[in-house]
Amino acid sequence: MSISPELLLRLEMQDLQDRYMAAIDEDRLEDWPKLFVEDCLYEIIPKENEDAGFPAPVMYCDSAGMLRDRVISLRNANIYAQPHYRHFTSGLTCRMEDGEVVMTSSYVVINTHTDGSSFVYQAGSYKDRVVKTAEGWRFKAKRVVYDTLRVQTLLAYPI
Amino acid sequence: MSISPELLLRLEMQDLQDRYMAAIDEDRLEDWPKLFVEDCLYEIIPKENEDAGFPAPVMYCDSAGMLRDRVISLRNANIYAQPHYRHFTSGLTCRMEDGEVVMTSSYVVINTHTDGSSFVYQAGSYKDRVVKTAEGWRFKAKRVVYDTLRVQTLLAYPI
Amino acid sequence: MSISPELLLRLEMQDLQDRYMAAIDEDRLEDWPKLFVEDCLYEIIPKENEDAGFPAPVMYCDSAGMLRDRVISLRNANIYAQPHYRHFTSGLTCRMEDGEVVMTSSYVVINTHTDGSSFVYQAGSYKDRVVKTAEGWRFKAKRVVYDTLRVQTLLAYPI
Repeated sequence: MSISPELLLRLEMQDLQDRYMAAIDEDRLEDWPKLFVEDCLYEIIPKENEDAGFPAPVMYCDSAGMLRDRVISLRNANIYAQPHYRHFTSGLTCRMEDGEVVMTSSYVVINTHTDGSSFVYQAGSYKDRVVKTAEGWRFKAKRVVYDTLRVQTLLAYPI
Repeated sequence: MSISPELLLRLEMQDLQDRYMAAIDEDRLEDWPKLFVEDCLYEIIPKENEDAGFPAPVMYCDSAGMLRDRVISLRNANIYAQPHYRHFTSGLTCRMEDGEVVMTSSYVVINTHTDGSSFVYQAGSYKDRVVKTAEGWRFKAKRVVYDTLRVQTLLAYPI
Repeated sequence: MSISPELLLRLEMQDLQDRYMAAIDEDRLEDWPKLFVEDCLYEIIPKENEDAGFPAPVMYCDSAGMLRDRVISLRNANIYAQPHYRHFTSGLTCRMEDGEVVMTSSYVVINTHTDGSSFVYQAGSYKDRVVKTAEGWRFKAKRVVYDTLRVQTLLAYPI
């Protein structure tokens, strides 16, 4: 049978989200910036601020170069204990708008402490803009809006 | 390549579940009843009761009108602090039976407290019946069977 | 529209993972060994050991017969309280290698205690090898590499 353009787009977006999560969770951080176009936006922002229209991101990068710098510093700095993240997404919705894909999904990150216990680290939603490039779909913007205000550790690693 | 009818049905069912979860998690509660046919069943029932063949649902609605009423009362009542739910599903299985889709999946709901911490609120399984309408696939029945007997807050919001 | 071979393979692998999780979570343990070829590997191993190249699995089965034996003993032994597991996966990546599918995904298992509370039981990653048989895709190897070192209960049930 043939598949509708809408379902095919969903599949391609799910594939992109899975590549994103796998890059972080399988400790291939160097692959993370490759999923963005050069002229991109990546920010992490508390839902409280987002809802109040008061943007005060706790992390803000406006180019893939800044994402690569962040990876380099995470690899070289010893001040951060490396987390063991596992990302999960759901509720993916997407639609085309001005030649870009506008995508929303819920996420939860499970972290495993150095003491060996696993717990819910952070929940929230991804608000993404995705564009088609010669290398495939890439994030033009990824806005991470988190519900969990009581974040236990420094937000140094990508969500 | 072409896709088998079974895999295409899976994709369409996953899309329906995602719309369901997104409506609740993105605070578009008014879209929630629209995913059901008018003559529908929605109930939340503890697994203990389900396994014992002793149906005593903690929430029971047998029409889309009752679902709409519930949304209106949730929007207008001030007695419930609005939760920040994030739904996740997995293990989707589905098959056709008498022209309806019989679907099962596991779910977990992560909630974020007013104190800002996120935790596992409830786990269980969805037992659904889905029918094709002129507007697309709709739930004829959604039975929410929960494992988590120690539910911390009133079950006022849809799961 | 037509679907690419890569996306079709993803869908088929997701379907296999969902069948796997549903067999365990819906208490159809007898269906669990049927998802493996006879000459298979199933092991559960701490990530610490995996990373150190020091394989010391806490569970090790090298045939579907051993998996069936395990199910029989779980069904007959009264020494284990049966858990209420709910499995979730994400970040699925897969590729063909020597006629087999090499697949990786993250997982989290939510468990519900006998006291009725639900919590994160274990997180980690599945490292799978999948082959095509006359009955469909089957696991040739499933290696469960867990992050969560502080596992609260005996690892008797399959993850």
